[in-house]
Amino acid sequence: MTTETEQGSDGGPLRRLLDGRWAEIRDRARSLELKRFDPPSYDLSTEQHRARILHRLEEFAASGLPRIGFEPAYGGVGDVGGGMVAMEMLGFRDLSLMVKAGVQWGLFAGAIAALGTERHHRAHLADAIEGRLLGCFAMTETGHGSDVQSLETTATYDPATEEFVVDSPTPSARKDYIGNAARDGRLAVVFAQLITGGAEHGVHALLVPIRDETGNPRPGVTITDCGRKAGLNGVDNGRIVFDQVRVPRDALLDRYGQVAADGTYTSSIESSGRRFFTMIGTLVRGRISVAGSAQNAAKLALTIACRHGLARRQFPRPGGADEVLLLDYRGHQRRLLPALVRTYALSLAQNDVLERLHEHLTAPAADEPERERTQREIESRAAGLKALSTWHATRTIQTCREACGGAGYLAENVLPQLRADTDVFTTFEGDNTVLLQLVGKGLLTDYSSQFEDLDVLGVARAVADQFVGFAIERAVNRGVLERLRRRRGVQPEIRDRDWQLGLLEDREKHLVETLALRMRGRLARDKDPFAAFNAVQPHLLAAASAHAERQVAESFLAATDRCPERADLLDQVFDLHVLSAIEADRAWYLEHNRISDARSKEIIAAVDDLCEQLRPQVPELIDAFGIPEAWITAPIAQPG
Amino acid sequence: MTTETEQGSDGGPLRRLLDGRWAEIRDRARSLELKRFDPPSYDLSTEQHRARILHRLEEFAASGLPRIGFEPAYGGVGDVGGGMVAMEMLGFRDLSLMVKAGVQWGLFAGAIAALGTERHHRAHLADAIEGRLLGCFAMTETGHGSDVQSLETTATYDPATEEFVVDSPTPSARKDYIGNAARDGRLAVVFAQLITGGAEHGVHALLVPIRDETGNPRPGVTITDCGRKAGLNGVDNGRIVFDQVRVPRDALLDRYGQVAADGTYTSSIESSGRRFFTMIGTLVRGRISVAGSAQNAAKLALTIACRHGLARRQFPRPGGADEVLLLDYRGHQRRLLPALVRTYALSLAQNDVLERLHEHLTAPAADEPERERTQREIESRAAGLKALSTWHATRTIQTCREACGGAGYLAENVLPQLRADTDVFTTFEGDNTVLLQLVGKGLLTDYSSQFEDLDVLGVARAVADQFVGFAIERAVNRGVLERLRRRRGVQPEIRDRDWQLGLLEDREKHLVETLALRMRGRLARDKDPFAAFNAVQPHLLAAASAHAERQVAESFLAATDRCPERADLLDQVFDLHVLSAIEADRAWYLEHNRISDARSKEIIAAVDDLCEQLRPQVPELIDAFGIPEAWITAPIAQPG
Repeated sequence: MTTETEQGSDGGPLRRLLDGRWAEIRDRARSLELKRFDPPSYDLSTEQHRARILHRLEEFAASGLPRIGFEPAYGGVGDVGGGMVAMEMLGFRDLSLMVKAGVQWGLFAGAIAALGTERHHRAHLADAIEGRLLGCFAMTETGHGSDVQSLETTATYDPATEEFVVDSPTPSARKDYIGNAARDGRLAVVFAQLITGGAEHGVHALLVPIRDETGNPRPGVTITDCGRKAGLNGVDNGRIVFDQVRVPRDALLDRYGQVAADGTYTSSIESSGRRFFTMIGTLVRGRISVAGSAQNAAKLALTIACRHGLARRQFPRPGGADEVLLLDYRGHQRRLLPALVRTYALSLAQNDVLERLHEHLTAPAADEPERERTQREIESRAAGLKALSTWHATRTIQTCREACGGAGYLAENVLPQLRADTDVFTTFEGDNTVLLQLVGKGLLTDYSSQFEDLDVLGVARAVADQFVGFAIERAVNRGVLERLRRRRGVQPEIRDRDWQLGLLEDREKHLVETLALRMRGRLARDKDPFAAFNAVQPHLLAAASAHAERQVAESFLAATDRCPERADLLDQVFDLHVLSAIEADRAWYLEHNRISDARSKEIIAAVDDLCEQLRPQVPELIDAFGIPEAWITAPIAQPG
Repeated sequence: MTTETEQGSDGGPLRRLLDGRWAEIRDRARSLELKRFDPPSYDLSTEQHRARILHRLEEFAASGLPRIGFEPAYGGVGDVGGGMVAMEMLGFRDLSLMVKAGVQWGLFAGAIAALGTERHHRAHLADAIEGRLLGCFAMTETGHGSDVQSLETTATYDPATEEFVVDSPTPSARKDYIGNAARDGRLAVVFAQLITGGAEHGVHALLVPIRDETGNPRPGVTITDCGRKAGLNGVDNGRIVFDQVRVPRDALLDRYGQVAADGTYTSSIESSGRRFFTMIGTLVRGRISVAGSAQNAAKLALTIACRHGLARRQFPRPGGADEVLLLDYRGHQRRLLPALVRTYALSLAQNDVLERLHEHLTAPAADEPERERTQREIESRAAGLKALSTWHATRTIQTCREACGGAGYLAENVLPQLRADTDVFTTFEGDNTVLLQLVGKGLLTDYSSQFEDLDVLGVARAVADQFVGFAIERAVNRGVLERLRRRRGVQPEIRDRDWQLGLLEDREKHLVETLALRMRGRLARDKDPFAAFNAVQPHLLAAASAHAERQVAESFLAATDRCPERADLLDQVFDLHVLSAIEADRAWYLEHNRISDARSKEIIAAVDDLCEQLRPQVPELIDAFGIPEAWITAPIAQPG
């Protein structure tokens, strides 16, 4: 194994490709701030673990990395993408820290920055950014998680005292799973139904102090502990109940909705639905960070499992004296290599969406509809990529655990911690299934403009009330993509880029079209929007997945153009990725006459062959992840 | 939810079906011995957890359940199946206890009973069975786990002192992951290469004391701790190194191989390979117990997730005021219902293999070749069922966790513990991939008798040297099966039993035949047995899975005959199971022209419809698992 990181080299062309635009931030995270973190210990009590993670959070704050994404006025450098990259680098090392940091900077400070106005920024942002003021993002309730619009907590304006009364009217209105709540948080961004003068204005966010200077809950605030979790036990998740807690009028984060002293409500966004989605649009950063951290956890798991597979031997070679390396078994290659190349695909798609968001936030389009369209497109990309990446991490880390046998079950070999910590990623920051539905509904809404009568029948109400439609998204570099997909024309056809991407596009298009037709048919028949929606739910999820898969493949292909030094290798990596994806869905392609029986078998054989061809390149492929040796503590992954 | 268990009722026809022949043992486990176990705590230190599980082990011993499977002479009642059922019932409640009990009674005491002779039984069996003598099963080494024949530990006979010298000659010869080793074990069954007079006789087992009365390691024995694991932290796994440890000649468990005072080796089994596989044939019980425990853990997970899905609502129904129950979403049904019915299939196949083993051990065939054939067949069934059941448990518990969202991530809701504890089941007691290879090689060996030239080309050496071939196995009740599969002839054809099972059989047959042909072709071409074997490894694994799937479906169908009261419901449950299984492999059926495109889509639609039809029966289906309310501690699973 090379140890390029230690040698201060640039890590080679593949690593440069993966590191992308924020390579320097990644190197700062690698070489400085995280080095002194000792390996995680698996025998800490919950309280010990929380104390350790709080200490690490303070170290991370002191490193200056978390402030990168914020405005210079509050100590940052306004590098949105860089700030997010700094966060996702924690996925390589300590997921509890990553999540607690995500709560503090991404959600808590992020919400103050995005939803508040200058007085909130001046009052709290510097303290929050420097980690002097720890906070919570109190959105989810016991009764409502995915359906945030139905939150029950109320914030009722009292013009007599110019205060909001924050209250949990029912047991299910209790704020739940809130990070930083059980132990460390002092101030919470609380999402509640805003009521002034008897009128409801939908969900808004307010700043509510939950603990006093000594750390005791404030009057009217009851905090309990969510206790032990599958993983992430360094994060203090808790539950908060508000009993008529009064906060001043200026506690309202009022960028998108304001309440005057007399209780008059104003907003620049007329539709309450659109206002709501504008406000929670800030969640997009969290989703992207989770996707990146999940990918990084998968990279560490693959590094461990591949190194083990390159060192461990079992069963003598028939007719020979030596034993066979695990990674020389075709079955073992089949488990690890498609996961390895898919990690490349998702990482490069992640870099793409990071850059899009960075551009959108630092140099937004002048045109308002254009800006909104870009926002929706990025939200859709982020939702799809988050779902794909977190499921990929869950599956891949599990595969790696199994590929290491009993050794993979030992805490010292890190995989158990990675597995347990990342497990919740598939259902938090937006449940994957719910996110894919949003993506799917967006596709359908866009498509529905071609069916005048759809709207009449109530599709809009059924499927689009939670998601503003977005136009067909644009690849950032359509020209590059067109050139790359035409470049080949090679034999066999299945290695032809145009054929590969054409298949992915065709599937997406067909799924969306037939989804719309099925819904139209259903609605015409039974006029029940829910029944119509429910009957096609698996179809909707498939359409959304197909859409996200196609986007990932396009981002990957476009990125390969930036690494001519390893073009041949990347060609094979891309082939294995896209053919594995087609192989996984080949039943669909067969059912819809997109491929013949013979072609389907050809794809399986090509995946087999590519696994074998890429086997010697595995050390280079995992080295390019650029994980410092000091972070790869697993004994089974130590260089022989 | 009904609480039939508490009411002392028999739990209804479905529960009687699932409980099967050993219903009374299951009820003893339900109503008596396990009731006083308090819920698992997730914030115990490793040492506290181990101490608790040791205490529970003593309680379990005192219940008398573990002794059921042993001979009356040593306190048992000779009920092999009953003893195994008692063990797998622990899978409902405490997997650490199940595994520690499995080590103590299944492996340690079981090996003394199966591999030892009367003097070993008299000396140790009563103490082992009553839990007064705790022991280890020291087979796996750091360097060799799946390939037990290549173990490096040696037991060299010294005729001068009439002793064996047990030694770990290399670092990789260290015994590893050994349950009961780190803390509680006093005596170990040690597997080692037996050497007398300079000749090697292969792997044999010896009794080696590893700790003295005060709990300190014996001279020459070095014990270290495997430390924290992903789960099962109540089990004290450790590592053992032997430095020229001397044990008396009668320490050899000599049922299948004896060493005389002068060092002369004798055995009734001439072939060392056959002797080895006879000895490790005792592992079959452990595999069956693991399969059953995995199924039971999946049942508990499904009970929790289904109850949650029947209580939790999210998102308002379009056009209505009420919110929709999670289990009314098609997507949610699709996640849980196929897993639920597959759990029925695996459980009934489990009962089948338990009965076969029980009959085989308590009333063996008089004819020796017949006995051996039955043994091999049961080993193959157990291997396939263990692989299918443990992968099913891993996937299902994960699905249940995700289906419960953030609540599923909290330790109080039990799913995290179930997930972490059962995780290692896919790779211990035989790695699933290795077990499927054994199943596949068995099929091939059997098949190869039809190809005279295969042997010439070395297939036998390449694929069969680890597994004695077995003839096509016989369903216990072929008559019942034939009647059941002919009974229908219904429309649509895909609900016809004969069509369904025919498809599974056809796939298995085709995969085995083409596997043999591919290997023959490969060998003719490159004459390298390893390359030939390796190229078809994924094919081999697919053939083995297809074989096991077909067996499970047959066992399930035959079992439905014993529950006429709920014949209609079981018809649907079976349909959903078998059509889901076909749906999962439909790419293969399409590629091989076994089904048309239209038929394939018809299958998908039928799975959708069956999920909807079975949705109202979910409470009855989970109640039939017969899990006492007191064991379902998850707050999200409490009856509303």
